[in-house]
Amino acid sequence: MKQYIDSQLTQAVHRALDGFQIEVPSWGFANTGTRFGKFIQDSAATSTAEKLQDAGQVHALTGCCPTVAMHVLWDFPQGVESVPETMAAADMYGVRIGAINPNVFESQIYKHGSLANPDPNIRNEAIRHIEDCIEIASRTASRDISLWFTDGSSYPGTASIRERKQLFTDALATLHGQLDGGQRLLVEYKPFEPAFYHTDIADWGMAYILAKAAGPQAKVLVDTGHHYQAQNIEQIVAWLLSEDMLGGFHFNDRRYADDDLTLGSIDPYQVFRIFAEILGYEFDTRQPADLAYMVDQSHNLKNKVEEMIQTAVNAQELFAKAALIDFPQLREHQRQARLVEAEELYRAAFFTDVRHAIREWREGKGLPSNPLDEFRESGYTEARAVERGRRNRAQTASYA
Amino acid sequence: MKQYIDSQLTQAVHRALDGFQIEVPSWGFANTGTRFGKFIQDSAATSTAEKLQDAGQVHALTGCCPTVAMHVLWDFPQGVESVPETMAAADMYGVRIGAINPNVFESQIYKHGSLANPDPNIRNEAIRHIEDCIEIASRTASRDISLWFTDGSSYPGTASIRERKQLFTDALATLHGQLDGGQRLLVEYKPFEPAFYHTDIADWGMAYILAKAAGPQAKVLVDTGHHYQAQNIEQIVAWLLSEDMLGGFHFNDRRYADDDLTLGSIDPYQVFRIFAEILGYEFDTRQPADLAYMVDQSHNLKNKVEEMIQTAVNAQELFAKAALIDFPQLREHQRQARLVEAEELYRAAFFTDVRHAIREWREGKGLPSNPLDEFRESGYTEARAVERGRRNRAQTASYA
Amino acid sequence: MKQYIDSQLTQAVHRALDGFQIEVPSWGFANTGTRFGKFIQDSAATSTAEKLQDAGQVHALTGCCPTVAMHVLWDFPQGVESVPETMAAADMYGVRIGAINPNVFESQIYKHGSLANPDPNIRNEAIRHIEDCIEIASRTASRDISLWFTDGSSYPGTASIRERKQLFTDALATLHGQLDGGQRLLVEYKPFEPAFYHTDIADWGMAYILAKAAGPQAKVLVDTGHHYQAQNIEQIVAWLLSEDMLGGFHFNDRRYADDDLTLGSIDPYQVFRIFAEILGYEFDTRQPADLAYMVDQSHNLKNKVEEMIQTAVNAQELFAKAALIDFPQLREHQRQARLVEAEELYRAAFFTDVRHAIREWREGKGLPSNPLDEFRESGYTEARAVERGRRNRAQTASYA
Amino acid sequence: MKQYIDSQLTQAVHRALDGFQIEVPSWGFANTGTRFGKFIQDSAATSTAEKLQDAGQVHALTGCCPTVAMHVLWDFPQGVESVPETMAAADMYGVRIGAINPNVFESQIYKHGSLANPDPNIRNEAIRHIEDCIEIASRTASRDISLWFTDGSSYPGTASIRERKQLFTDALATLHGQLDGGQRLLVEYKPFEPAFYHTDIADWGMAYILAKAAGPQAKVLVDTGHHYQAQNIEQIVAWLLSEDMLGGFHFNDRRYADDDLTLGSIDPYQVFRIFAEILGYEFDTRQPADLAYMVDQSHNLKNKVEEMIQTAVNAQELFAKAALIDFPQLREHQRQARLVEAEELYRAAFFTDVRHAIREWREGKGLPSNPLDEFRESGYTEARAVERGRRNRAQTASYA
Repeated sequence: MKQYIDSQLTQAVHRALDGFQIEVPSWGFANTGTRFGKFIQDSAATSTAEKLQDAGQVHALTGCCPTVAMHVLWDFPQGVESVPETMAAADMYGVRIGAINPNVFESQIYKHGSLANPDPNIRNEAIRHIEDCIEIASRTASRDISLWFTDGSSYPGTASIRERKQLFTDALATLHGQLDGGQRLLVEYKPFEPAFYHTDIADWGMAYILAKAAGPQAKVLVDTGHHYQAQNIEQIVAWLLSEDMLGGFHFNDRRYADDDLTLGSIDPYQVFRIFAEILGYEFDTRQPADLAYMVDQSHNLKNKVEEMIQTAVNAQELFAKAALIDFPQLREHQRQARLVEAEELYRAAFFTDVRHAIREWREGKGLPSNPLDEFRESGYTEARAVERGRRNRAQTASYA
Repeated sequence: MKQYIDSQLTQAVHRALDGFQIEVPSWGFANTGTRFGKFIQDSAATSTAEKLQDAGQVHALTGCCPTVAMHVLWDFPQGVESVPETMAAADMYGVRIGAINPNVFESQIYKHGSLANPDPNIRNEAIRHIEDCIEIASRTASRDISLWFTDGSSYPGTASIRERKQLFTDALATLHGQLDGGQRLLVEYKPFEPAFYHTDIADWGMAYILAKAAGPQAKVLVDTGHHYQAQNIEQIVAWLLSEDMLGGFHFNDRRYADDDLTLGSIDPYQVFRIFAEILGYEFDTRQPADLAYMVDQSHNLKNKVEEMIQTAVNAQELFAKAALIDFPQLREHQRQARLVEAEELYRAAFFTDVRHAIREWREGKGLPSNPLDEFRESGYTEARAVERGRRNRAQTASYA
Repeated sequence: MKQYIDSQLTQAVHRALDGFQIEVPSWGFANTGTRFGKFIQDSAATSTAEKLQDAGQVHALTGCCPTVAMHVLWDFPQGVESVPETMAAADMYGVRIGAINPNVFESQIYKHGSLANPDPNIRNEAIRHIEDCIEIASRTASRDISLWFTDGSSYPGTASIRERKQLFTDALATLHGQLDGGQRLLVEYKPFEPAFYHTDIADWGMAYILAKAAGPQAKVLVDTGHHYQAQNIEQIVAWLLSEDMLGGFHFNDRRYADDDLTLGSIDPYQVFRIFAEILGYEFDTRQPADLAYMVDQSHNLKNKVEEMIQTAVNAQELFAKAALIDFPQLREHQRQARLVEAEELYRAAFFTDVRHAIREWREGKGLPSNPLDEFRESGYTEARAVERGRRNRAQTASYA
Repeated sequence: MKQYIDSQLTQAVHRALDGFQIEVPSWGFANTGTRFGKFIQDSAATSTAEKLQDAGQVHALTGCCPTVAMHVLWDFPQGVESVPETMAAADMYGVRIGAINPNVFESQIYKHGSLANPDPNIRNEAIRHIEDCIEIASRTASRDISLWFTDGSSYPGTASIRERKQLFTDALATLHGQLDGGQRLLVEYKPFEPAFYHTDIADWGMAYILAKAAGPQAKVLVDTGHHYQAQNIEQIVAWLLSEDMLGGFHFNDRRYADDDLTLGSIDPYQVFRIFAEILGYEFDTRQPADLAYMVDQSHNLKNKVEEMIQTAVNAQELFAKAALIDFPQLREHQRQARLVEAEELYRAAFFTDVRHAIREWREGKGLPSNPLDEFRESGYTEARAVERGRRNRAQTASYA
């Protein structure tokens, strides 16, 4: 009997994993840090090609990370002209180009904002940059352009909140007009940092209103680290799904602010609940939730490739657990307000150990059963440290 | 020169106060408390008529609280039939009936929710209650029906968030259909308490979506205590104003959760900033922001009438300060990104002492220059304590 | 090979459970609620004896809840004189009296505080009540007197924080002088509610200073719900352990404030980490952490006995998981700063499914393998509802 | 009569300002930013001498910033050997060297911590650096060595919290042994950033225990931005004062995390309450609170010297307001639990406009009545931009 249940469970896990992929970000392989500095890793990627090489390694070992989110400015230094070279590199390393992320925050001109800058010339510059990104996305066959804006203000009274909202509304409508038929604008929100008093797109409600106004190909992007403390993220996911306005995720974890830690490292049950809302939506509507799962983390302390492998494995485990929920029974319990029964059923899925079933899935795919061990034994880090070390050590930056 | 400026300032303050009114809640005059108990005041109101008597006292002394928000169940025990008696009492005490607040949370039937209860009979019961409230509002000539729902769940997995959203959407549309031409449904949001895991209408974005779906007479109600910590409330106000979706406020203050403390007692600068967004909207659009300013506080420790007078006075002071902002100059600074200049101008309004100008305004209206002192010297509390003391002391309730 | 590992794991789980007990609170079986009301359960306990009967049921089914925390005022209505009757009831239902909890917050005299009340007569009254509790504890052979104070203020400027600190210091020293040799004063802290601006004992640092000043038998009590959002509770546990100042826990869970939800229902990984700090302390020091594990929850929605069984089972599972941590290896990884290895080892314990091993432990003890199912099938709730229903339905209380 | 009161008020303000000084940080004049980048100002200081020059400008205009906190590593690049040159520069610009701030976080060796690093060689290196700082402080006649540590961990399970506590205890005792008779170690705490899971010195209780263990010349340093949301900072101040364990402050403001904004720019009433606790302590004990008031801000957007002048002016205004509190009357109200009276008295001080009295004080001291206007008209920024512009523009750093 137990054998039979285990076999059902194993099948459910395998089915879930067959349909689960998560995109890794190119910037997760470079040396990044906090405002107080970066701890340099010799083996970190120092170029677009190296980032793709590392991403290729993650995919080769996990089988679930076939695409790489790219950051224009850092990854396409010549803009559109960098596309062929970048695509060739991706191809060489066995990955594809994923979401395209504009950068309208690092240049000195963006000190007072990008699309909501009070200066129309700077606004136009920002629009042109994003239009270039849309063009890049067309050439790389990327569906999603991910928009994160740092626009806002740090002191009360220094900005007209409503005027800036209007500027965003207008600019996003313009940008929406540039999209190919299949492309999507994903509008990200964040409550604070680096704008400290008000951020123009501070929460999901603001992203929703702007995306709605921009047009049907604009959706909301949920970064799990971009919420107020204690906010119920899975409820936001459920609402956006029900409004057909959820485009995807930037996954990471945090204890306090936007700490960009490994997915599920602080609150794994929360990630499970997010996946549970998505799978519950699919169960109820009998249609797939067409979402982009992406990682957005900053790896300052752990080996970058190791942390990305950990991330992919965590995501698989938590997704597989959510796939074990008996939704027909859960919905019945909910309808009858059988609280304890519903909760026990839900928790049972979370507390089921899916690791063995996942190892089996890997073996069936010809993947290493433990990608992290395999990676460590491969000598990859040591080899890259030799190749890239000098370039990495040349980087320095002081807080003050 | 200084004299001239002071005189301008005084005129600006007087103009602001002429247009400023704030509604007091009937329940602010009764004994309320925390889950750990109530501290009974002998002079607290024990009936609808007594609440209106106390409210009349606040208005007589401050001149800015002509209406009283009413709570159906506590204030209209016989529902529609209680209307004539209640209106007569209001009339006797020199106030008018203001917003009508349904209660679909206290009855035992609402354990698993009201409009989103899984049981259709209970949902219908809740709808009927609110329909009665709309009818009461028609008879009391009240424009606003304020909707606060405790619906939600306290444990992950025990409720279908999307299904409950749909139930709310349907029910609010039904209720909107019952409105008179001039009436409004105000949809309130709250992130937690008494539902602890998920609240069906948890934030302004959810209230916005539901109000939008319900119809053009549904607007969002902002309770200042119903936000995540560090959330920028004035930004929400600015967005709702720009979307024509702001109906009004429940004012109170708090340090941590929904503490229902005196307006401006913890963070007066925040209240100033909210008023600044409203007055800035009026300056920019040259049209009045048609908002209901209401108090929603729980007075457990201070004398209830005194705390309400304090509240009205605080609101006047902070509104008057915001009215001193030089908006033409502020907008120019903002457009030029002159951060320090903009901030200094904005702060100067907050730090201007308007109390003398307000006293003058009161004297010009035949009101006491210091309403709180006048109230204390009147002997009102002592007289009410004699009349109402025994009834108040009969109340008891234990946490466990 | 796998078999051998599983058998080791099973033994580790069984050893952990043999040493794990958690105390249930009498008030968890009575009807409690939020400030907005209580949802009455017919089967809830309405007397001290009934609370002990319910607690006895929990212990009979789980085998890990032999003691019951009692609340003087609610449970010993005649104070010391109620002791014999209460002990007889405990004995009859197969449980023992655990921690004694004074109540110096519900009486009207405590409106402005108890031990820090500005009125010396009220302070003395509070001291006398706690002295009675110490006497009760002596007679019930209870080691711990748990002190939770609501003292504080709700508005800036209304209380002298330092003067109140001194009053607490003096009173706790007096009370410490009344203790038997083996007794302990446990000083609880809480950041807010029901005092909203400042709580006299707001955080662990304040409880630590007061306990230290009171004497060697005073320790700090950690209620998991009494922290700021994002605060690292397990770090506080580790510090108090290292200072020999941790007395025990009030367990519960929450999303936002002091929501008093089922242990581990919102963030099970956090409970695991707390247990991991305790077991790590025992590993490092080779001495037992002599702590009182107690539940402090408010069961407003779920069946009260069911929720308590769930709680005990959750606690066992999370404690057993923490007991699987390979501490020698973990310490070695930590010493070498092998972050990923340390984290993977730590997480592996959390993600190991211990439920089967726990069922085996239960069977070995003659306990039902699934206590919750057993309880439901027993008809206990239905029988109690018949006996207690009328008394429960007689309770009513309105917020306003 | 009113004239007389005004004159009393003016005198109280002047007396308060005569005794109020606030130290500015050298790093507040250099280009700093967030992890996403720095917005470069041409006129920012690029060397220790330039920082002192700018600080001299702030002091010349405000008269209340005679000392400058220095950061070893950035300001004393040759350590002790840099002292004569630095002191000469300070002297030239009319300021003195204030607190000395070690830096044991920026070097690559500190990736896993400084005083709590698992590697004893690195711990010794950190101790040596701080010993050098103590030596520098002796030579600069600086009383305070301010210790901020980034030590902690970012992932559960990766560090032994208790072992690291012991390492800190030992190292601080060693360092305390190096102090001159009059010197002080100030131990700062911070809940998160850049360590994201646990920070070794996370809150005031931890800093208190460590300072207490280190010796009598160790005190706690309160950085107003280093608290949990909603934490009552003034209560911590009051407790530390009553324990004689408060050394001083790092002032700044924030909305969410450690945003390092201008003092009083987000919540001015909170700063007032902190000053009120200090002045209340002085009133009650009739002894001065011997505290170091220091600014710790990061000026990314506003002109750095302007923001520092704003900061000094804000601090003066809020300190002067607190000095208007009628403490004898306040204490009497508090003792009688006259909540409304106490609160009104307290708020009246905050809402009194002290700006005119401060302008008079400045004029009496031969200072410009409006330091900000004076600074702008002086052409200082433009002149510095010419001198320093090229060096500033040479700085670049990319997040990834």
